[in-house]
Amino acid sequence: MAFTFQINNDVTWNREERLLKKAQENLPEILKTDIQPVAITEIIEDEHGLNGYSAVVSEKKISDLAKYGLGRDQKIILDLGDHYVGHFSIDITSVGSPMDAPLYLRVKFAEVPAEVVADSNDYDGWLSKSWIQEEYIHLDVLPARLELPRRYSCRFIELAVIDTSPKWQASFSNPVFVAESCVAMEQLTSFEIQDDELSTIYDISVKTLFDCMQEVFEDGPKRDRRLWIGDLRLQALANYATFGDLALTKRCLYLFGGMTTTDGKIPANVFTAPNLIPDDTFLFDYSIFFAVILADFYYQTKDQEVLSDLYPAAKKQIDQALTLVDDEGRLNLLDEWPVFIDWSNEFEKSTAGQAVLIYALKRFIQLAEWMEEPDLISYQEQLAELTVFAQTQLFDEEKNQFIIEQSKEINVASQVWMVLAEVFDQEKNSKIMEEMISTQFPITGIATPYMYHHVVEALFVAGLKEEAIQLLKNYWGKMIELGADTFWEAFKPEEPDFSPYGSPIMSSYCHAWSCTPAYLIKKYI
Amino acid sequence: MAFTFQINNDVTWNREERLLKKAQENLPEILKTDIQPVAITEIIEDEHGLNGYSAVVSEKKISDLAKYGLGRDQKIILDLGDHYVGHFSIDITSVGSPMDAPLYLRVKFAEVPAEVVADSNDYDGWLSKSWIQEEYIHLDVLPARLELPRRYSCRFIELAVIDTSPKWQASFSNPVFVAESCVAMEQLTSFEIQDDELSTIYDISVKTLFDCMQEVFEDGPKRDRRLWIGDLRLQALANYATFGDLALTKRCLYLFGGMTTTDGKIPANVFTAPNLIPDDTFLFDYSIFFAVILADFYYQTKDQEVLSDLYPAAKKQIDQALTLVDDEGRLNLLDEWPVFIDWSNEFEKSTAGQAVLIYALKRFIQLAEWMEEPDLISYQEQLAELTVFAQTQLFDEEKNQFIIEQSKEINVASQVWMVLAEVFDQEKNSKIMEEMISTQFPITGIATPYMYHHVVEALFVAGLKEEAIQLLKNYWGKMIELGADTFWEAFKPEEPDFSPYGSPIMSSYCHAWSCTPAYLIKKYI
Repeated sequence: MAFTFQINNDVTWNREERLLKKAQENLPEILKTDIQPVAITEIIEDEHGLNGYSAVVSEKKISDLAKYGLGRDQKIILDLGDHYVGHFSIDITSVGSPMDAPLYLRVKFAEVPAEVVADSNDYDGWLSKSWIQEEYIHLDVLPARLELPRRYSCRFIELAVIDTSPKWQASFSNPVFVAESCVAMEQLTSFEIQDDELSTIYDISVKTLFDCMQEVFEDGPKRDRRLWIGDLRLQALANYATFGDLALTKRCLYLFGGMTTTDGKIPANVFTAPNLIPDDTFLFDYSIFFAVILADFYYQTKDQEVLSDLYPAAKKQIDQALTLVDDEGRLNLLDEWPVFIDWSNEFEKSTAGQAVLIYALKRFIQLAEWMEEPDLISYQEQLAELTVFAQTQLFDEEKNQFIIEQSKEINVASQVWMVLAEVFDQEKNSKIMEEMISTQFPITGIATPYMYHHVVEALFVAGLKEEAIQLLKNYWGKMIELGADTFWEAFKPEEPDFSPYGSPIMSSYCHAWSCTPAYLIKKYI
Repeated sequence: MAFTFQINNDVTWNREERLLKKAQENLPEILKTDIQPVAITEIIEDEHGLNGYSAVVSEKKISDLAKYGLGRDQKIILDLGDHYVGHFSIDITSVGSPMDAPLYLRVKFAEVPAEVVADSNDYDGWLSKSWIQEEYIHLDVLPARLELPRRYSCRFIELAVIDTSPKWQASFSNPVFVAESCVAMEQLTSFEIQDDELSTIYDISVKTLFDCMQEVFEDGPKRDRRLWIGDLRLQALANYATFGDLALTKRCLYLFGGMTTTDGKIPANVFTAPNLIPDDTFLFDYSIFFAVILADFYYQTKDQEVLSDLYPAAKKQIDQALTLVDDEGRLNLLDEWPVFIDWSNEFEKSTAGQAVLIYALKRFIQLAEWMEEPDLISYQEQLAELTVFAQTQLFDEEKNQFIIEQSKEINVASQVWMVLAEVFDQEKNSKIMEEMISTQFPITGIATPYMYHHVVEALFVAGLKEEAIQLLKNYWGKMIELGADTFWEAFKPEEPDFSPYGSPIMSSYCHAWSCTPAYLIKKYI
């Protein structure tokens, strides 16, 4: 697992206010629901739980919460009963003698039990400590209603009294978590799934998507609240299959289309506070996915205005990508515009990159046809060259697998993306996938639902429905076994406690790119 | 050093709303002054500084503050140039790439350099950790003006960035500390002191008092913001000698007079937030000081209304105290109404307690005369009995010192309070004090400016002016040598780093009961 921070201070930006205005016109209203904790909980050591911990209902009753006065070093954990994103408030009073010192309180919000137990002082990873959902609060005067101004993503809320004084204790009552999303569960159309396991996976996918749908499609509401284009593509697909909130997708498309570099490149992500700000990070596959997302949107909506507005930006990404293709049809990636494919840098990505370009170019050609693009033929010719190069130079007929041109490395990502790009027909794709299953399964070294999504979808595309369903169950089902209320940013079945950050306190346990089973189940099952 | 928390849950209160209304009518307006830091400072190890640390001006310029971008684990210390009490705000922005994580910031307010360095995690003393002036703050969106809602007491403000992200840093600008007091330095009448050392002691006393004068005479603005009656007595004396804010003194008298137990006892302290609340702590000497404070106020103001309103409460304290005096004129203290005298419990307090009662009764008799009290003679007779008992049973003629009746212990407090109570004439008092100086000086085991004040005043009362001035200089001057901007809650010259709480992070370095040199210098020099 590796992630390199990009810093590109010299990049200059072109803001198309006409497009950004349309993005802001589609800013959703956030819907709010009051959630009361369902129980007081205790976190216990449990070898079957994620990171070795599980939550069990305490002997203390939530209805008696106010009776449990807390003094120095005493704590209580509230269980919301499910994962939510939103704001927390609670009444606090002092009991005993007059309050002769402030109340000093730590409030910790946790998505999973192990996060409650983890000590934030032990975290020294590369991602900012500022993401740890933990507040230290002084209250000089009680009674008071503590209304925390920040938003949290959690199921568990730990109230830890650091100190009162020997003369009084703090008593808590009326805890309320205002759950927030721009969609309502009532928007879902009823959908029957016979298989109980798949039904549960579907429900948790939907809840994951729900919690990530805020003022943009967020990446992970706990920790990375930005709009990332790679995640947007998958969230939009899951959204079409479930909530069908077209305005939010439109908004996000306009946000990317409206903020490009002066040479036209779309950034990997954008921020929306304090105002609309593009990030100085660029990923090859993410940039060209803009055309894919636009094509998916147009399939769903036939919205000519959006197509006309955003086609130029989509075209610009493809054009920039195609400048990297040489006369033989080979994509030559640049260090300053790396391809993501997956977090792991333990495998070579050039073949998968070539496949992503073929995949995106095919969808762009659809857009170009709708737009009556004068240069359509040129794009078709370049697609053919890229495809022929892949078929002849990146495929080992004997091994029946795609390879890396120089090193001959065979990896999962190359097969998966070439199948998704449909470089060969379904029969041949099926053989490639079978070969991959026999040589690479069970998969190791891949930690993202993002990559697993593409593996599963490639199996479906290649006609291997049973194998696809099995992997879906093995991967997402295993998270449920470990206690998932929503699906996670990172999960390695062969190493369930793995965190890319070295601590569950930093991992995101509700993460957009893991919400795709809802889409896969609806589309393929 | 010991302090026993009193918890008296069964006490019932009598609130005299008529008196409390007058207390609230005298609620002062808080005057505010914007203070800009004068320097960026570095804390260095220094064997001559308090607790081994001193502050030196940094090479970093305060005018360049915004240029010093801070990332993970970087910090900067602002120096206000003097001690202040009030509210802090500062502009914060991000510099570098877009802000891809919250800012996590610790802001620490310190009265002395050693407090900046002390780690709050190391503190495990008996006083509440909630007093540590340290806030942990997440800011999700920058730029922002951070306006901290709580009040602090400090000279130094440490801005410690716990984390940003590798892509950006936090930049700080426009720090403002709004200093607060209910009086203005301009209210002081000009007062020439020839002796430079005394002049500095006077100035710092005045600043100490200034910072403690808020909506009540506070005990210590950093940590104990209550109105304590023992401190009120001394603050009122220093106030008459300096700012002359009679309204605040009147307010505080009415607060105590308006909240007594149903059997009439005045509590040792009261709270004013969220509303007026008496504490369930009772101290014998503090209760009867009510009569002394009222007498002092009447000497100053000749305010007949205040006298009439509060005489009954003063009388009630004296009457309760006198029930503890037996036929021989001996005060028999009760465990549930202990005498304070000093924090230290290393010496016996019965003789000092008897002296305090004589001292207070003399002043009450003055009140009784003004009020034309019908039982005046009875009080005079009881005073005589108490005095004779002290002269005959508590004084060792041979040793020329007051003693504890049973153990024969001779201690400083017994001599000092009997001299202040003027049980003997000045000539004899002078001899007693000389004997005390020869046997007990340099004083050890006394850690409070409260007790040292009484020692110095007793020397003045006994006519030992030189010795009084010398002790004043030795004690308060030594704090200045160690870097005091205001005088401290606790100080042992023989052990300068002593803290009653085991850490400078909890000690109060601006404390009401240490402000009396202003009064002593004006009255006696």
